[in-house]
Amino acid sequence: MIYADYNGSAPLCPDVREHVIKRIQEGPFANPNAIHHLGTKVLMAMENSRSVCAKVLGADFKQVLFNSGATEGITQAFFSIMHKNPKKKIIISGIEHSAVVNCAKFYMKDFGHEMVVLKTNDNGVVDLEDLKDHIDNNTAMVAVMAANNETGIIQPYREIAEICNTNDVPYLCDTTQYIGKTLFDFKKSGIDYAVMSGHKIGAMTGCGLLIAKDPTTVKELVIGGGQENGKRGGTQNYLAYETLAVALHYFETHLDKLEVLNTKRVEFESRIKEKFPDVVIIGENSPRLSSTTYISYPGIHGQAVQIELESKGIYVTTSSACSDNEPVTSKVLKAMNVTDDVGRGVVRISLGMCSDPAYYDEIFEALSNSYDKLSKIKSY
Amino acid sequence: MIYADYNGSAPLCPDVREHVIKRIQEGPFANPNAIHHLGTKVLMAMENSRSVCAKVLGADFKQVLFNSGATEGITQAFFSIMHKNPKKKIIISGIEHSAVVNCAKFYMKDFGHEMVVLKTNDNGVVDLEDLKDHIDNNTAMVAVMAANNETGIIQPYREIAEICNTNDVPYLCDTTQYIGKTLFDFKKSGIDYAVMSGHKIGAMTGCGLLIAKDPTTVKELVIGGGQENGKRGGTQNYLAYETLAVALHYFETHLDKLEVLNTKRVEFESRIKEKFPDVVIIGENSPRLSSTTYISYPGIHGQAVQIELESKGIYVTTSSACSDNEPVTSKVLKAMNVTDDVGRGVVRISLGMCSDPAYYDEIFEALSNSYDKLSKIKSY
Repeated sequence: MIYADYNGSAPLCPDVREHVIKRIQEGPFANPNAIHHLGTKVLMAMENSRSVCAKVLGADFKQVLFNSGATEGITQAFFSIMHKNPKKKIIISGIEHSAVVNCAKFYMKDFGHEMVVLKTNDNGVVDLEDLKDHIDNNTAMVAVMAANNETGIIQPYREIAEICNTNDVPYLCDTTQYIGKTLFDFKKSGIDYAVMSGHKIGAMTGCGLLIAKDPTTVKELVIGGGQENGKRGGTQNYLAYETLAVALHYFETHLDKLEVLNTKRVEFESRIKEKFPDVVIIGENSPRLSSTTYISYPGIHGQAVQIELESKGIYVTTSSACSDNEPVTSKVLKAMNVTDDVGRGVVRISLGMCSDPAYYDEIFEALSNSYDKLSKIKSY
Repeated sequence: MIYADYNGSAPLCPDVREHVIKRIQEGPFANPNAIHHLGTKVLMAMENSRSVCAKVLGADFKQVLFNSGATEGITQAFFSIMHKNPKKKIIISGIEHSAVVNCAKFYMKDFGHEMVVLKTNDNGVVDLEDLKDHIDNNTAMVAVMAANNETGIIQPYREIAEICNTNDVPYLCDTTQYIGKTLFDFKKSGIDYAVMSGHKIGAMTGCGLLIAKDPTTVKELVIGGGQENGKRGGTQNYLAYETLAVALHYFETHLDKLEVLNTKRVEFESRIKEKFPDVVIIGENSPRLSSTTYISYPGIHGQAVQIELESKGIYVTTSSACSDNEPVTSKVLKAMNVTDDVGRGVVRISLGMCSDPAYYDEIFEALSNSYDKLSKIKSY
């Protein structure tokens, strides 16, 4: 079996599996806020995990808030910035995850804010000039991701941060697909709020981080008993938070794996293009994550390819998990002016740093066979 | 070692440990919203878990929403009811968890609502007459818990539900300490919104449920890509949600353990009272959870007792995890008119259904020794 849907959700990385099994066999289990020794032990392990996460991500210990994942982080960043904000304008890109889009829509519909969607260049990169044109004194916030979940295309988040910082506008950057796939330094980035999900990097499901340049600006979204420095109520999910540190440490100490993967990915893409000249690789010449290929054979339905690959034990998706069920050109591709002819044909092949690079050879074989077979019975 | 802080957080129950270890060894891991077979498998296991939870708790499948825990559930219930609600009054009890208190305060401070705190009778039970006096056409919601985290005293939630239903006022019942410790039937309860946390019943940390009589009234607090029927964004924490079903199934099939525990708890309390006539058991004659004893020896600091017990490997707390660090009479006890003399002396001994009932004998010995020792050097 080859699992090639890391951008959807990553399997637990080997070190995380080992950690969780040992952790569950040995304990201790306790409320990290309890005064007894077991509580203190749990608390210390959790705070140590926070230190590791902060270090790997170039943030201060106090800037790192644990939560249930990137969607909560995004919602909380919006809440922190937008709650009772007199400034009207929310600027987002056209390729944002639905969490960002729907947060912006919430403040539009329920509190009368205004949403500006930036243009995306045909190469899948957000148009910086459009941002410069729109940002003004009435801008409450900007939300542009670091790397796109469908295409893997990397966005110029440092330049965006610079524009935002100059204009004194808070910048929320959805770094969910970026963190754990390439090096990230929060402090150097200039970003005000960054987010991540454990399950995208091989840590446990249901955990994540909100990193805030100024944590005092964070407003409590999940309102509880003072946990996470009063910024996130509820007994901390310490078992999962520990795995964030394990996965990020694994990432930091295995960066070479990403390079190998990248080399193999580039090779895979050129081989498939050579064999099938009609094939389109989305964002081919744009900066991309080392492990994402979003590929289309115009005329062959992506879903048909996905099913063919699945019959050979290779698991890919057609776009993002949330819009998977709609056999239409995704909004991300539409923003890039990708035609329906190409858009309906895409499958997303996404590996992770724990994947065997040789998988690309197997995927090449299976994909070639699928294209050979399906091109004879073109579906649209 | 005897862990006697189940009301703070329960260790994973044996069946949950076994399930998680097997689950992590064998997989599969996938995004439950992905179209491929692995995604479907994960989704089906998760939905099956929802069915089990619904069945054990007397709810419909569609009434059960997975989330990160009771604090999120409480915040979401408040948001669902209070967002843009023209009715001003929020009625809560004086013994609510800080999650409820702080949610009510948020709507007071930020949206001009009014908070009414009901009287508590000296036996630790909320005053129903006071509720009847206060509930009116201007009441937006009522929040009274099912069982108190500190005292274990059970509240008349069915009567409260009846009063609320008659007055057409939504009733949020914090059932966090009740579920998994005694039988609960959501439909029969008349409650509009109930909540729970996995880590209180031996399931994984960081997961829980919001149960809603009419799920269409639930507003999305964590805003994402349409997961949980559009009511809770973010990739589902499927690994943890499965353990909710495992723990609740364990609960349902081991109810006899609770009875045995209750018998031993009653025996333990009468033995300690016999030996130390000055000792006070909070809510002694009130309906209580089978596994909670909140006990005070006036004049001996609770924290001194806690440390003594800890030195013998018995882990208890002085009050709830969140207010643990303050050596003062807790607000729950103050609401019950408990004097400081008693209030400063309390320790909470809380076991769970997986605990060996013989623990009560060991706790009796250790507590007796502690009281013997410390009463000679009374601390206040």
